[in-house]
Amino acid sequence: MTVVGCLGGGQLGRMLALAGLPLGLRFRFLDPAADACAGEVGELLVGSYDDPVLLDRLAAGTDAVTFEFENVPVAAARHVAAVPGPLALEEGQDRLREKELFRRLGIPTARFGGLDETGLPALAKSRRLGYDGKGQRRLGHGDMLRDDELAEEIVPFARELSIVAVRGRRGELGFYPLAENAHRDGILRLTWVPARDAPEQIARDYVRALLEELDYVGVLALELFEVDGGLLANEFAPRVHNSGHWTIDAAVTSQFENHLRAILGLPLGPTDALAPCAMVNLVGSAPPLPELLTLPGAHVHLYGKSPRDGRKLGHVTLVEPDEATIGKALALAGVEL
Amino acid sequence: MTVVGCLGGGQLGRMLALAGLPLGLRFRFLDPAADACAGEVGELLVGSYDDPVLLDRLAAGTDAVTFEFENVPVAAARHVAAVPGPLALEEGQDRLREKELFRRLGIPTARFGGLDETGLPALAKSRRLGYDGKGQRRLGHGDMLRDDELAEEIVPFARELSIVAVRGRRGELGFYPLAENAHRDGILRLTWVPARDAPEQIARDYVRALLEELDYVGVLALELFEVDGGLLANEFAPRVHNSGHWTIDAAVTSQFENHLRAILGLPLGPTDALAPCAMVNLVGSAPPLPELLTLPGAHVHLYGKSPRDGRKLGHVTLVEPDEATIGKALALAGVEL
Repeated sequence: MTVVGCLGGGQLGRMLALAGLPLGLRFRFLDPAADACAGEVGELLVGSYDDPVLLDRLAAGTDAVTFEFENVPVAAARHVAAVPGPLALEEGQDRLREKELFRRLGIPTARFGGLDETGLPALAKSRRLGYDGKGQRRLGHGDMLRDDELAEEIVPFARELSIVAVRGRRGELGFYPLAENAHRDGILRLTWVPARDAPEQIARDYVRALLEELDYVGVLALELFEVDGGLLANEFAPRVHNSGHWTIDAAVTSQFENHLRAILGLPLGPTDALAPCAMVNLVGSAPPLPELLTLPGAHVHLYGKSPRDGRKLGHVTLVEPDEATIGKALALAGVEL
Repeated sequence: MTVVGCLGGGQLGRMLALAGLPLGLRFRFLDPAADACAGEVGELLVGSYDDPVLLDRLAAGTDAVTFEFENVPVAAARHVAAVPGPLALEEGQDRLREKELFRRLGIPTARFGGLDETGLPALAKSRRLGYDGKGQRRLGHGDMLRDDELAEEIVPFARELSIVAVRGRRGELGFYPLAENAHRDGILRLTWVPARDAPEQIARDYVRALLEELDYVGVLALELFEVDGGLLANEFAPRVHNSGHWTIDAAVTSQFENHLRAILGLPLGPTDALAPCAMVNLVGSAPPLPELLTLPGAHVHLYGKSPRDGRKLGHVTLVEPDEATIGKALALAGVEL
């Protein structure tokens, strides 16, 4: 019996388990919330990531422990010998270190640092605990940067792209096709794959450099801005990623299965897309299931979470969609882009 | 919260739940075995199908109750108002009634009845509780038919085919491509899809007649022999079917999801195959996971059951396989065909 532990029991943990159960794996989660939605598909320990007794219970008898969010305390990840290792967490949890890492690896970024670096207007981003656009504000004339913030040049990007990649225990690599993303209120709403006329090779080179520098094992996503045909790295997420959810329905091997294969030292699976597709997030409230299921080529994924403003409750993947179907899905999801 | 109940908690119930969890469904199973493998993905009630208290607990608060094997007691199915309805069980649980139903619908079969009908040699099949080749014997000169048996002509068939179909609550229909099957010791070992040069339309006509006569809701499989280019019906299974497992990985909508959509009155999904594929059953023992995962295009499905001779422990679907890959999978599965 192979058992996987996971710090965090949200939808990413849930989808990891749904990918791993067919491989005969079993799952155990640790989450502060008693109603964490991964609890439907594995054992759920409820409590703090700082509780050494719970961390020991999480890790007991497992073949690997992983995490499903990038703000998991590094000490907790160390305590359970999590895979990927804590280095990726440390580098990613501080936006300044993250940008400096990009710079060190020759991966271009927007200008960052103090306001003397970026000029005004600029974005101020909290160095820690930012996600989904939280912890960001726009600085204009006369505004000041706080000590816990980093200034970032406002880049007039043409589009937002992301690449999801996987690295195995023996250094083997896999790259999913570049995805194109659209956000609203800082939350991802729409991903389509493959991105049109995308600079695949440049993105692969960047994410490969990152994976190898971090000696990374598992799935990682790198978010990019396309500016004047070049790519600027925005941030990376040391985990399975929302812009890779389409892989469940339209890649030979899903990002979730490949993350599990990687952390368990199993052979990686092919990352090819079987068909072009679009993914629409269901945020705040979920439309009626029958309406979603009438969308041609729709695969519906609901996470079993109760509705709340700004909360990701599910997503729908549209395989080989036309523009009208994407439009209908966005309308059902209640979002205009 | 939509809840589905299921009589039986084996691998078919488990795969129903794995298909339904992403739709936000929850599952409850009733099974006599405390280690029934669907218990990993839903609530498991342990006990007899004849226990009215347990049947009431199974059905309480559900949106639909279904079953995952064709020998479930009809009284239990009636008690919980199972979908599909008990008529399909009644007709299918007695091989004589089943054959007479085929005859009534104009669906050709091998000759059957007494030995005066079939001549010798013939197959003797128990009228009830046969599956996976159990309850069958060959009759030669001087052998007698027992009262609980039916004689069946031995047909020199060219190949075994099966069609998996789905019918919704409003009579809407979907047909998966005809599958070609190979058995060993009465157990399905290999399915490939689509069957070459297959008489799709004839098979669809037959299964449509059956679904409509039974006013059937859900997925049903019809097993056929190809003889001299024509088709003879062998038997039907009023449930998701082993020869439809490939649909998880290579159909737009899996047979499991479509069964759930049908019994819940949701719109059916497309039944198209995305790619040709082969499915190899893992019977008796399961080969090491790393070896299975190195097969090109392999999707591995292990059921979490303990090994036992003749027991189906899992299957592997090979997407777009070549002959060599199928051969390797069969060798790993320890079967020669």
